[in-house]
Amino acid sequence: MADVAERAGVSASTVSRTLRGLTTVSPDVRARVEQAARELKFAVSRQAASLVTGRTGVVAVLVPTLNSWFMGSALSSLGPYLRASGMELNVYVIPDLAERTSFFERLPARRNADALLVFGFDLTDEETTRLDDLGMPVIYVSQHADGRPSVYVDDVAGACKATRHLLNLGHRRIAFAPTVAASGFSFSSRERLLGYRQTLTEAGIPLDDELVVTMSAEDKRGVAEGVGRLLSLREPPTAVFAEYDELAVCIISTLRKARIEVPERMSVIGFDDHQMSEWIDLSTVAQSPSDMGRIAGELALKLIDDAAADHARHIILPTYLIPRATTAPAPRPQGEQEEADGSSSL
Amino acid sequence: MADVAERAGVSASTVSRTLRGLTTVSPDVRARVEQAARELKFAVSRQAASLVTGRTGVVAVLVPTLNSWFMGSALSSLGPYLRASGMELNVYVIPDLAERTSFFERLPARRNADALLVFGFDLTDEETTRLDDLGMPVIYVSQHADGRPSVYVDDVAGACKATRHLLNLGHRRIAFAPTVAASGFSFSSRERLLGYRQTLTEAGIPLDDELVVTMSAEDKRGVAEGVGRLLSLREPPTAVFAEYDELAVCIISTLRKARIEVPERMSVIGFDDHQMSEWIDLSTVAQSPSDMGRIAGELALKLIDDAAADHARHIILPTYLIPRATTAPAPRPQGEQEEADGSSSL
Repeated sequence: MADVAERAGVSASTVSRTLRGLTTVSPDVRARVEQAARELKFAVSRQAASLVTGRTGVVAVLVPTLNSWFMGSALSSLGPYLRASGMELNVYVIPDLAERTSFFERLPARRNADALLVFGFDLTDEETTRLDDLGMPVIYVSQHADGRPSVYVDDVAGACKATRHLLNLGHRRIAFAPTVAASGFSFSSRERLLGYRQTLTEAGIPLDDELVVTMSAEDKRGVAEGVGRLLSLREPPTAVFAEYDELAVCIISTLRKARIEVPERMSVIGFDDHQMSEWIDLSTVAQSPSDMGRIAGELALKLIDDAAADHARHIILPTYLIPRATTAPAPRPQGEQEEADGSSSL
Repeated sequence: MADVAERAGVSASTVSRTLRGLTTVSPDVRARVEQAARELKFAVSRQAASLVTGRTGVVAVLVPTLNSWFMGSALSSLGPYLRASGMELNVYVIPDLAERTSFFERLPARRNADALLVFGFDLTDEETTRLDDLGMPVIYVSQHADGRPSVYVDDVAGACKATRHLLNLGHRRIAFAPTVAASGFSFSSRERLLGYRQTLTEAGIPLDDELVVTMSAEDKRGVAEGVGRLLSLREPPTAVFAEYDELAVCIISTLRKARIEVPERMSVIGFDDHQMSEWIDLSTVAQSPSDMGRIAGELALKLIDDAAADHARHIILPTYLIPRATTAPAPRPQGEQEEADGSSSL
């Protein structure tokens, strides 16, 4: 180790700290030490180092899926950020309830990370308590937990923007399409439903549960049935707010195949500002999962290094309404006269 | 450990093998042992275990991005598969050349996984040799390396299917749009370009480099310029084969904004069969990244457990042409008469 220190021009303790993966070493020094270690073929075992420091050099993330634009963007910024700090990224994909149960059952037998990021699960109180007992910082991402570090957008406020945009365009019958993952209702689904409901209530529009129809972009038949339910109502909606952009695309595709023009006869708005949304001119509420991933990584490293840091810190990121070509003024009700007072649209 | 063995009804050595993360333990036995360990709060340190076994219980994957449907689908099947075998998934996202260089420079100082899966990088010979020296199985996924374990689709054959479909529809001027990632040309780009060229040559159509235009779905301006280059040729193409579905969507969007109807005036075909492609009725060549992820995981575990296994095994997965609504017979050349012999379209 003294050889490496001499070669890199740093102290032996700096070499030790670097090779143990501590984040207090500057990227520049880390690069020099690793270069020297490489030249001297000084292959340190991170496992051996971790027994001394109690550190693993790993940040674990728990995600419901990797198969979404949101998760891909978030981890694509988190991964390089962690690596630049000498940390590795462990990914647990928990696609369904059985996996989730099994993950939580196995938890106590593991201590393989220095921090855990939990993305977008609507956890039970029991599960949250279990995570508290892990003995490592647990950061809630794209969701929040009382008294625990959290990084998220204000989904309620975002849903409010989408709904208000539709109200401002004159829509009164507005549907909401939440999704249900195999692992249960997501945190964002619940919050966005809440924002949708609050905004309608504030506008004096009575809530109608028939306008809330669950669908998933992975189930084509289910989307057709869901859209069919809306179209067969006594008074169908003139606008649909989809929980996320991919689902909005499915709904638009289903409507267009049925020759219901979007936005002329039906407005559709999503949530995310998916990479594809600009291309297909989808109105949406933008959030930045890549900012979210990086900021969650920063918070994780801070909490690992500093036990005195504020462990109840909530970081709330902004959302933006992006009006595009799939939302338009509400169509005039069929049969309404130029002279009509418009009360039939209320 | 004897307590755990008694409680789980297995031998102490089975408990040891289970808690060390060996894959020779059946899922059923693993569940029983972990349940017993949990009940007895027997928190084994994987780090300590790994010093004994030389195993880390981790499979690492090296990916150019997580922000694509392909990678999301592949890892969404790989992650749960590995976890069901008691292994964890370490993800290294290498988004650009600087990161890639740095990753390869740091390699020798690490020994943090039992196997490495390398996804879709067009590695240099030097980099491949470096991976050979890692002392662990390295599996090439969505690409192949001579004499090394590889899991991939035959990109050449897939590109051939797309190109031949366009030829069979009467197209003679067929463009190819490959992409270039920040980390360099991908393996699939090169292979698909090769398939496109081979098929045209077989059909007796001279290659025209002006018809090969590089674009990326992340660069809107670049797609507009690329499509513009094709449209400003003396003899523009009547069909475009995009390297992947997301790029095909961008090209279609650009064409439609310019009032060039797809498929009436221009056919567009992609590659992947992205989740969204069915919704937007995109013609494409389907592959299954989720099969690829799982099969790569199976191969990794086999090579970890069995040093005598065939370490040069290549597993080639199928592709399928999925004709949909964005490809159609080539438009008749402008000004061509009903009586024309059609030679102007050759």
